[in-house]
Amino acid sequence: MTDPVELTQALIRCPSVTPEEGGALVLLQDLLEGAGFTCTRVDRGGVSNLFARWGDKGAAKTFGFNGHTDVVPPGDSGLWSVMPFAGEVRDGEVWGRGAADMKSGVAAFAAAAVDFVRETPPDGAVILAITGDEEGDAKDGTTALLDWMDEQGERMAMCLVGEPTCPETLGDMIKIGRRGSMNAVVTVTGRQGHSAYPHRAANPLPALAALADRLASEELDKGSDHFDASTLALTSIDTGNTATNVIPGAAKMMLNIRFNDHHSGSALTEWLRGEAAEVAGRFGVTIDMAVKISGESFLTPPGELSELVSGAIEAVTGRRPALSTTGGTSDARFVKDHCPVVEFGLVGQTMHQADERVTVADIEGLAAIYRRILQDYFAV
Amino acid sequence: MTDPVELTQALIRCPSVTPEEGGALVLLQDLLEGAGFTCTRVDRGGVSNLFARWGDKGAAKTFGFNGHTDVVPPGDSGLWSVMPFAGEVRDGEVWGRGAADMKSGVAAFAAAAVDFVRETPPDGAVILAITGDEEGDAKDGTTALLDWMDEQGERMAMCLVGEPTCPETLGDMIKIGRRGSMNAVVTVTGRQGHSAYPHRAANPLPALAALADRLASEELDKGSDHFDASTLALTSIDTGNTATNVIPGAAKMMLNIRFNDHHSGSALTEWLRGEAAEVAGRFGVTIDMAVKISGESFLTPPGELSELVSGAIEAVTGRRPALSTTGGTSDARFVKDHCPVVEFGLVGQTMHQADERVTVADIEGLAAIYRRILQDYFAV
Repeated sequence: MTDPVELTQALIRCPSVTPEEGGALVLLQDLLEGAGFTCTRVDRGGVSNLFARWGDKGAAKTFGFNGHTDVVPPGDSGLWSVMPFAGEVRDGEVWGRGAADMKSGVAAFAAAAVDFVRETPPDGAVILAITGDEEGDAKDGTTALLDWMDEQGERMAMCLVGEPTCPETLGDMIKIGRRGSMNAVVTVTGRQGHSAYPHRAANPLPALAALADRLASEELDKGSDHFDASTLALTSIDTGNTATNVIPGAAKMMLNIRFNDHHSGSALTEWLRGEAAEVAGRFGVTIDMAVKISGESFLTPPGELSELVSGAIEAVTGRRPALSTTGGTSDARFVKDHCPVVEFGLVGQTMHQADERVTVADIEGLAAIYRRILQDYFAV
Repeated sequence: MTDPVELTQALIRCPSVTPEEGGALVLLQDLLEGAGFTCTRVDRGGVSNLFARWGDKGAAKTFGFNGHTDVVPPGDSGLWSVMPFAGEVRDGEVWGRGAADMKSGVAAFAAAAVDFVRETPPDGAVILAITGDEEGDAKDGTTALLDWMDEQGERMAMCLVGEPTCPETLGDMIKIGRRGSMNAVVTVTGRQGHSAYPHRAANPLPALAALADRLASEELDKGSDHFDASTLALTSIDTGNTATNVIPGAAKMMLNIRFNDHHSGSALTEWLRGEAAEVAGRFGVTIDMAVKISGESFLTPPGELSELVSGAIEAVTGRRPALSTTGGTSDARFVKDHCPVVEFGLVGQTMHQADERVTVADIEGLAAIYRRILQDYFAV
């Protein structure tokens, strides 16, 4: 039996702050090759990634796991009760950077996969696609692995991303999709002038306020079958003028939209530009808009994969998970173009914080669930 | 005859950048004492001021002039075609910092007053109240002179402030009042949060945008008999948040109001607070407002004083001046609590700029108008 807790501790001791490999992928490659996995390092753009397959390439039944070993920086070590890279177990919990997000998840699916193929070799293949760039800009991480897999003819029939998904208790939530996310930087340019003579200037701020008010007041939708309502958040408005007798020449606004399957990034971009053009015309100012779509919304509709994962969770924990699409983005946004994908992992309450930690019991439970998923998948 | 052009040049050579006296008041005191004026330096708070009276204290007919010898800094000397404190005459113009604002004005009324009392000693008094702090915060300038005059029982029956008032041509405009001015700093405080979960945060920006839109859309009035419409200018909105996935906790707005005699600073403050309270309640945020009233609006209604000045202008230039209340604030806002006051001086197009200058002809014309004002005032 491979101990997922010890493996989590060993991975925490690899200081793999993005984009450092830190020894984490090397450690996993050793373990997996020892269990008969074929491993390939798929490094790109200074990022390290590991592809591992047990069983035949191109097997019809191929189950994949995706996860990452890179972590966010520990921040001020004075805020920690432990050394962030010591991998200590204390009071029934594993402490350290990456304990929740998501060295434990990688350890759990690696341990489950190794034990499963050793003890009950399936008729099919198990793939582990592990990246060292999820917390960074993710340009050369899971995307690089999927690009490489396409080139090599490597396919997964379905995939589970092992990110933390549970709000309170292990097994209480699966993610079957995510809202899309996009950012816009809006620059309103008018004409500078003296506060005493506003009619000689073209103040960008009333136009910016009117646009901001319109955008923030808009109800994008009321949610959909599987998604919460889309949201638009104004994140900053800035001018940088300190002179009370000067009307500024330009001002800037940033906003973030999280959108469900009622929308696409391009349709929202068009809507934003239309609103901006209306306000620009009305106020006699110029409005430029730079839009960046971080990811479109996606959904793996409830079905075979979610049922497989939910059944395994229920078998191990007695709990039936909620099928959710809440939260930010994850690498599932890339995997969904490859095969059906869901996300399931630990309770993520302490992720990215000081004193990040998870219980030993939850890591063991997660490994058991992952193993059960493999058993049930290949039992059919 | 005292030459107002030479006197302007001599004053420009005194580098009296606020709050430096620079020799300017000493020079004027010498000149005035030589012509029989009783002079008193009324210095306060590190600022130098000069009070000068010819004739009897408390005379019923007492005409006052007010002006300042301090100047704003010359800025980058590379932008000047001349040395800013050389006081050169070139191509029929006097060049240098303070040439327009307002060493020429002080020189013109000092020369006019000296020649007038020498050649046609009037039955009454002439007062010159000259400050060294008009361009600064004006706390210890004309206010100090007026405070001291009150204590001493010194009175002016009417007063002319010699600031530049003419937009294009000498004699085209008198100021008979000024709009008031006030600034507000509005701080909206909500609750920080993650852009993906706006309902868990209280974003200050939609509230700020709504308040800004309301305030900027408000028509304060349509103007009054002697005043342009009041104006409200948003001068800055700032947040300082660079993280696209974070909803900020607070944001700030600055605004400036120029208001006519339909309003008072306190009534406008009450209106601003009322609007802020409505928005704060609707959006569930806190809105703090710091208001500073720089000056109330004031008006010396057309009558004896404006007629006296207009008549003198017409006699010298053949031009009938407009009676205006446009522009920023001046020390007339203090003098108006003491006696009727109007402002009249040179063409101010180059004031506060590099290559500040006025024509020799205009300085001579201005001194002639000031002298004619004194003649007409005491002739009655």
